Amino acid sequence: MPLTSRAAFNGQVPILNKDMTLCISLSARPSNNGTRFHNHLYGQLDLNWIYKAFAPTNLEQAIAGVRGLGIRGCAVSMPYKEDVIALVDEMDPSAKAIDSVNTIVNTDGHLKAYNTDYTAIEQLLATNSVPTDYSVLVQGAGGMAKATVAALRDAGFTDVTVIARNEAAGRALAEQYGFSWRAALDGGAADMIVNVTPIGMAGGADADALSFPAEAIDAAKVVFDVVALPAETPLIRAARAAGKPVITGAEVATIQALEQFVLYTGVRPTADQVRAAEEFTRAQ
Amino acid sequence: MPLTSRAAFNGQVPILNKDMTLCISLSARPSNNGTRFHNHLYGQLDLNWIYKAFAPTNLEQAIAGVRGLGIRGCAVSMPYKEDVIALVDEMDPSAKAIDSVNTIVNTDGHLKAYNTDYTAIEQLLATNSVPTDYSVLVQGAGGMAKATVAALRDAGFTDVTVIARNEAAGRALAEQYGFSWRAALDGGAADMIVNVTPIGMAGGADADALSFPAEAIDAAKVVFDVVALPAETPLIRAARAAGKPVITGAEVATIQALEQFVLYTGVRPTADQVRAAEEFTRAQ
Repeated sequence: MPLTSRAAFNGQVPILNKDMTLCISLSARPSNNGTRFHNHLYGQLDLNWIYKAFAPTNLEQAIAGVRGLGIRGCAVSMPYKEDVIALVDEMDPSAKAIDSVNTIVNTDGHLKAYNTDYTAIEQLLATNSVPTDYSVLVQGAGGMAKATVAALRDAGFTDVTVIARNEAAGRALAEQYGFSWRAALDGGAADMIVNVTPIGMAGGADADALSFPAEAIDAAKVVFDVVALPAETPLIRAARAAGKPVITGAEVATIQALEQFVLYTGVRPTADQVRAAEEFTRAQ
Repeated sequence: MPLTSRAAFNGQVPILNKDMTLCISLSARPSNNGTRFHNHLYGQLDLNWIYKAFAPTNLEQAIAGVRGLGIRGCAVSMPYKEDVIALVDEMDPSAKAIDSVNTIVNTDGHLKAYNTDYTAIEQLLATNSVPTDYSVLVQGAGGMAKATVAALRDAGFTDVTVIARNEAAGRALAEQYGFSWRAALDGGAADMIVNVTPIGMAGGADADALSFPAEAIDAAKVVFDVVALPAETPLIRAARAAGKPVITGAEVATIQALEQFVLYTGVRPTADQVRAAEEFTRAQ
């Protein structure tokens, strides 16, 4: 059932009302995920709120609109996560740690910026009780790699190596957080291996590829894949088969969206409510 | 059933999608009328659009948001109808005629301003075939009085008298359009009498009052009340009882909203669809 038509409503007319609080997202190429996840939770929690994705024509004007229209919350995606920093009033440590914003909360015109990707990784390292004396290999050097490396540093990890073919990006990322860089794995191993490349991502060129070799998986005590779609990447499947504890990108995605929801509404849904919203989000 | 709660959805979750086109309203004290009227028509016409009322915190930022978020249409109400003129790119003659904007259409970032109150009165004078050589008494000197007087002038009426106790406002309005002013009716009569004061308005101090005396009604050939709520004001009821052709404020309100809808979407609903949307709007 295509979401681009009214058929998505099963013929229902979604009548809004004037008192609804609006949250939005800003992205060059919006998906329907946020719109479905947040609206479903609003419904479950009987909140008179509404969520709508936007592809802005001008970031500065869009943020002015967040202020001027009293839009409560604003998710920020590619390519606006860094440009938006100059347009907010306050940076939460989660955004400051990686110079990247994915969430803005508007409180009476004061815009505070967060990064819930960082928050999610920080939470998952803690809830999975990953010992901070573990050696860590982080493969990748993009925005999520930065969130991962910063969260590792801030959690107290000291033995972290960034693996990235692009020396400029990889070295800069590693050095910014006091870690080391290597161009390739080259038979390396660590207590925790983390994939933050698109390898294993559904629809990508390397959807069926394993982001770490079997030897690295066997040597690891924890396997973490930041790729969210599919939840069961080749790396996660191989790690489960080898009996390793795993942390999945799907968990990162859920927690980052949930923390946005909590920042906007001040309400923390139950695990069951989150699960129902996730299922609804996936049923597109 | 209060519209301020989810109960308004009968428990349904209104799940939006990323591709929906948004239209909004800007008003210090929004009603639910536009939100209900437009969303109902979107549903009937299977348009993937959504409409939401806003009470902006800052007009300039709100209009920047209309541009930056690519919001297609924007209704403008009190107290922004004049201040918004400086923020748009082009004034349609309907807005220019009365220096007042109630509608903005955003076409690829170019904001064109209209006034569909003016358009509605212009249309009603034409569709009711009111002869332009009729003498006209217009009681009132506010924004709708200006739209009425301007539409009369532009339609070719020449014998128009503005009646307003406030001499400064009344005289200025009359003189701007080349007409005369009087402080009070004082037994006066005309071929068409037009009420543009709040007299007869539901919930107002003069809800039960007749805005023109029986003698003026008896002498008139057409009776026009711009008060929209109730549709059957004391003036309209008295005029109908006297067998006079009437033009009601409810007609003005419907046409102005309909013309906004047409300007935004490019689609003209059928009379039945408009009637259904009006009924839905009233069933609050």
